[in-house]
Amino acid sequence: MQPSGVITITTDFGHKGPFVGVMKGVILQRFCQAKVIDLTHEIPAQWPPEAGFWVRRSYRYFPSGSVHVAIVDPGVGTERDILIVEYDHHYFMAPDNGLLGRMLDHADGALIFRLDLGALERLGIPTPSNTFHGRDIFAPIAAELAAGKTTPVSIGVATDTWVPAWIDEPVTGAGRVTGSIITVDAFGNLISNIDAVLLETFSDPVVHLAGQQIPVLTTYGNVQPGERLALINSFGVVEVAVAENNAAETLGVERGAPIEIRERDPA
Amino acid sequence: MQPSGVITITTDFGHKGPFVGVMKGVILQRFCQAKVIDLTHEIPAQWPPEAGFWVRRSYRYFPSGSVHVAIVDPGVGTERDILIVEYDHHYFMAPDNGLLGRMLDHADGALIFRLDLGALERLGIPTPSNTFHGRDIFAPIAAELAAGKTTPVSIGVATDTWVPAWIDEPVTGAGRVTGSIITVDAFGNLISNIDAVLLETFSDPVVHLAGQQIPVLTTYGNVQPGERLALINSFGVVEVAVAENNAAETLGVERGAPIEIRERDPA
Amino acid sequence: MQPSGVITITTDFGHKGPFVGVMKGVILQRFCQAKVIDLTHEIPAQWPPEAGFWVRRSYRYFPSGSVHVAIVDPGVGTERDILIVEYDHHYFMAPDNGLLGRMLDHADGALIFRLDLGALERLGIPTPSNTFHGRDIFAPIAAELAAGKTTPVSIGVATDTWVPAWIDEPVTGAGRVTGSIITVDAFGNLISNIDAVLLETFSDPVVHLAGQQIPVLTTYGNVQPGERLALINSFGVVEVAVAENNAAETLGVERGAPIEIRERDPA
Repeated sequence: MQPSGVITITTDFGHKGPFVGVMKGVILQRFCQAKVIDLTHEIPAQWPPEAGFWVRRSYRYFPSGSVHVAIVDPGVGTERDILIVEYDHHYFMAPDNGLLGRMLDHADGALIFRLDLGALERLGIPTPSNTFHGRDIFAPIAAELAAGKTTPVSIGVATDTWVPAWIDEPVTGAGRVTGSIITVDAFGNLISNIDAVLLETFSDPVVHLAGQQIPVLTTYGNVQPGERLALINSFGVVEVAVAENNAAETLGVERGAPIEIRERDPA
Repeated sequence: MQPSGVITITTDFGHKGPFVGVMKGVILQRFCQAKVIDLTHEIPAQWPPEAGFWVRRSYRYFPSGSVHVAIVDPGVGTERDILIVEYDHHYFMAPDNGLLGRMLDHADGALIFRLDLGALERLGIPTPSNTFHGRDIFAPIAAELAAGKTTPVSIGVATDTWVPAWIDEPVTGAGRVTGSIITVDAFGNLISNIDAVLLETFSDPVVHLAGQQIPVLTTYGNVQPGERLALINSFGVVEVAVAENNAAETLGVERGAPIEIRERDPA
Repeated sequence: MQPSGVITITTDFGHKGPFVGVMKGVILQRFCQAKVIDLTHEIPAQWPPEAGFWVRRSYRYFPSGSVHVAIVDPGVGTERDILIVEYDHHYFMAPDNGLLGRMLDHADGALIFRLDLGALERLGIPTPSNTFHGRDIFAPIAAELAAGKTTPVSIGVATDTWVPAWIDEPVTGAGRVTGSIITVDAFGNLISNIDAVLLETFSDPVVHLAGQQIPVLTTYGNVQPGERLALINSFGVVEVAVAENNAAETLGVERGAPIEIRERDPA
């Protein structure tokens, strides 16, 4: 794979403190041409599923050969492994804690490795701290991969197992699909894990959420302010919005809530 | 115009989720040398006037030939147009919803175009989603402009009309100027739309705000902590501050509040 | 010193408004190859000690020859000086208000200069505003330094005095060390100014904080969720955490709180 020089970073570090900044510094120390892009640093603290969701849904908008680093890592400093994945002409690095689980379930042809910590010494990477592997392991390895100076097979051990995703796949039954709200965006829109393909069998789908029935439309613009609507969002999943308003607050719904699609009752 | 390769992005997307990040990914897919700078992503949700204010007041601090993309877009997915403007050796792109209205009112010599959506196909840009034109239209077009691979006239239709600005211009009367607080900065300083030139006719101007009279000084440093003051800020407009304190909280003033300048009463 | 082209920026500007963005614009106007990295912009408003702490603890993770600009500047527009420091193969710029005080106390071999404002004209930098020296002085000077187009000695006057740090050094006594909580990270972990070397004389150190005794361990991972622990963090200072929880909230401790290390009582 021809690296693009682009590295994306996804974390729950927030913007207080220099944590993301020093990761970029370490990357530049090893690969001064790196182009580092923040995907988001506002993943809810120590909740890998949202990081995995966004990485899986976002990577294709970056140049082929990009390196996607995702760090939501409650187990830092314990024996948890670090996965390095080559899939669909992109590299992915994350703790093996379920973060990449859902993507790997569907990643036909992925090459999956567990980082061999012995590789750190071979690459001249100092002994890592116990608490900041983002800076001490992920950043230098990502720099080496992005620079084309190493490859997953040179620094990892092939594997075909991984810690499973924390959130179940949507369940499909007779005339219904049940999923979960996976995240809430800055506008308060509720983003689910129900992929557009799961709606294809419905002739007139209706979203059931928080005791309400919400129609599935095509855009925010075709409703009156305050009206509820569901749509297939730009990342290909079902999203619930309140036009020009905050759906999470209006509906009293949070991350993790169940959401169901049913055929409209012929009333 | 010789492009600088610099693209600035101004949105109300916040920092939760990958929305700004994937825009940068799409830019790098088309123009890997792009230098993308965040102006701010904390414009109040769906309120174009603040985005227009900051773009108009900030663009001159970037290299000539930069592309300034501003997306606060309650009408995404409806029939609203996208404006592409060449003015003062910079490019500007925004929805035609008033965001650029105030700048265009004063932009002598600006070349103004409405994006021809047919240009997307000619540039090899995939059919856009209904809900994320930032990623699907603004980002790839900005990349093409910044790379010098297209020009506004090649992808747009010339126009001399636009949706007007949402906030009125300051009104000047006998011995007074009345404007609006347009935004509040991170320190709680209250930034108005009253330009410095409007103060030139006053011999001893006083700010009237929230029932108080506030003197016009030259810097924060010449007062005691807690003292109220107005000054011409570094972007050339009247700003009200409370020294080493939060003026918005202290005075109970929010975005949109009226602010008036009057001649000091000869008491 | 061979510049790396990297500039880091640390401020209390937050992310509302274009303040950091226009600094980057001004840098690119003068040095279009600059690589600008945000260290953090969420320093508590007008509180230099945290900025100085992070710059001192972070700079070594950037390439040699980087320029570190830190602006927390309650005295902007008054007679306060601007320091330019060359130390340990890095440049540092900050207002002379104590921000760099602690680093300079320990910076053997540092070359310290006060910016000569006459240099602005010689470098073609326009007359600065009274309120935004980040954009009008720091950014263009940092660009010139990062580009190798000027040096501290060319634009400053050597000095060996500086405004002292606002927070006292930790005090060491018989069997105890007393320091301060210097900042709280996004997880609520409490970060002190007590360096790891100060613990070396203890055989079994215990942290005393908010009336509680907290053991010193090696990582977050070896405790049960909810358990309190102290550790030497990845920046080499004592940090107090609550496993998978927010220590600041759980313990009711804020920035500035006293923290003490004592030998464990032989009970």
